Amino acid sequence: MAANDTSARTPPTDHAGAEVLPERECLELAASVPVGRIAFVSDGEVVVFPVNHVVDGRDIVFRTGMGRKYWAGDYRKNATFEVDDWDPQQKSGWSVMLMGRLEVIDRTEDLELERLGALGIQPWADGEPKDEFLRLVPAEITGRRI
Amino acid sequence: MAANDTSARTPPTDHAGAEVLPERECLELAASVPVGRIAFVSDGEVVVFPVNHVVDGRDIVFRTGMGRKYWAGDYRKNATFEVDDWDPQQKSGWSVMLMGRLEVIDRTEDLELERLGALGIQPWADGEPKDEFLRLVPAEITGRRI
Repeated sequence: MAANDTSARTPPTDHAGAEVLPERECLELAASVPVGRIAFVSDGEVVVFPVNHVVDGRDIVFRTGMGRKYWAGDYRKNATFEVDDWDPQQKSGWSVMLMGRLEVIDRTEDLELERLGALGIQPWADGEPKDEFLRLVPAEITGRRI
Repeated sequence: MAANDTSARTPPTDHAGAEVLPERECLELAASVPVGRIAFVSDGEVVVFPVNHVVDGRDIVFRTGMGRKYWAGDYRKNATFEVDDWDPQQKSGWSVMLMGRLEVIDRTEDLELERLGALGIQPWADGEPKDEFLRLVPAEITGRRI
């Protein structure tokens, strides 16, 4: 029914009327803002922590110190990274979710750490060192725009 | 050991050196931005959805249509609301988490819906109606500033 195929003219929308974004655009948008949030279950509660991140291929990489984020990576927990940006005047915005698994990046891989360091991940908080690199490897990437 | 009590001069900090915010300030900050995120476990995955919200006492209230957020409220699921704001130039910002339980607000309570409507919760997305009001009743409120 080619006459009814409007996919080339109008982007797909979800049940709430939001535009569904393709993966490539999700990753471009995720890279366009410096802060996102990593969410996972810790002690039976959903915790959501802001991180400043970079996009490395399809993955999200960020630095952390010892704490709940590090241990989530050490346990290779399922986690979701969310990032969004909004214009309250226009009542418009977008959000992107990457759902997958956390990994601690092996600190003995000198070349890999050097490469990631060059991506410009600088932790903002003072205090204890944030010497660990975590990677979220997504199984699913979704995004919406309204 | 009053001589060692510096709590009046320096705010408490966490293990990462971030300032720990008192509950009153967490709620004021949560009310100062129009968009936060509601996170919960759905089908074994952590999902994180942006919502435009209001603060109602200690609770977070937002509107939604039929979908995963509504059903999370209908099941009275544990959920976490997160809200933050950042200044990339200053490398400063804050984040607030409210961890608790979602509830669907009874639509037969006319006065309550009228009161909540007056708080100015306007859904941004077009598309299907967002006639349901959800409330996150927090058991724990935490906040950090860096």
